[in-house]
Amino acid sequence: MKRTMSLLFAVIFVSVAQHAMAQKAEDAIKYRQGVFRVIGWNFGSMAAMAKGKKPYNAEEFARSAEIVAFMSKLPLEGFTPGSETGDTKAKPEIWLEMDDFKAKLEKMQQEVTALAKVAQTGNFDASKDQLGEAGQACKACHDKFRNK
Amino acid sequence: MKRTMSLLFAVIFVSVAQHAMAQKAEDAIKYRQGVFRVIGWNFGSMAAMAKGKKPYNAEEFARSAEIVAFMSKLPLEGFTPGSETGDTKAKPEIWLEMDDFKAKLEKMQQEVTALAKVAQTGNFDASKDQLGEAGQACKACHDKFRNK
Repeated sequence: MKRTMSLLFAVIFVSVAQHAMAQKAEDAIKYRQGVFRVIGWNFGSMAAMAKGKKPYNAEEFARSAEIVAFMSKLPLEGFTPGSETGDTKAKPEIWLEMDDFKAKLEKMQQEVTALAKVAQTGNFDASKDQLGEAGQACKACHDKFRNK
Repeated sequence: MKRTMSLLFAVIFVSVAQHAMAQKAEDAIKYRQGVFRVIGWNFGSMAAMAKGKKPYNAEEFARSAEIVAFMSKLPLEGFTPGSETGDTKAKPEIWLEMDDFKAKLEKMQQEVTALAKVAQTGNFDASKDQLGEAGQACKACHDKFRNK
């Protein structure tokens, strides 16, 4: 009886711990997806201007670039151990090749920081060029580490 | 025949326009939810420290407070006209009482900006107090404008 009870408590403990871990993983996934949504929203606005789908507004472009530069520092902490499964497009390669993932993330951070600087000058052509560089840095990481 | 074709094109046009609007509304909803997830992630970390569930780390607390202060300026643009329906907890009251919604949002911005300042001093008690004030400002808006 005592042994059965111990076993029961052990099972309950493991189950509760697993649930807590799954909850934490889900929070981390939602967090990092939130970061990328805010980046995407602002990137989309700049891209629309660059493509002439929306009139260029130097102030708005610079604000979006500043927001993206700020946000670029936030995703990493969301790629916690255990959050490779769940409702996520993140490939397991992120955790298996964390150094390369971090390098690609840093490259993106550099490009969007440069973008925020260029955007402040109000030079549309230079801003478009640097937006392209930033987009390439995003794509390099998506191609390797994100599922379609 | 000509009239039928015109009608057909009109239906197609309206349908495509509706789809584009729905897509835009969905993007706006995902954007603002992304903003709130990033706020929630950082608020959760500060609250865990305040409640003693996680050891107080002044630098980490101050970083979270700074992120929340930055993010607090971002949600409004996501509450676009037409984005009151869809996968959202936002109540229609937001669009019907936009002035009050904005006032509550501004109150939150003030409180989290004050939090970022206090947090920089590394005074844990003062930071906890101001976190409480910020939490109240969040709650006031949630109570009125967010579905459970």
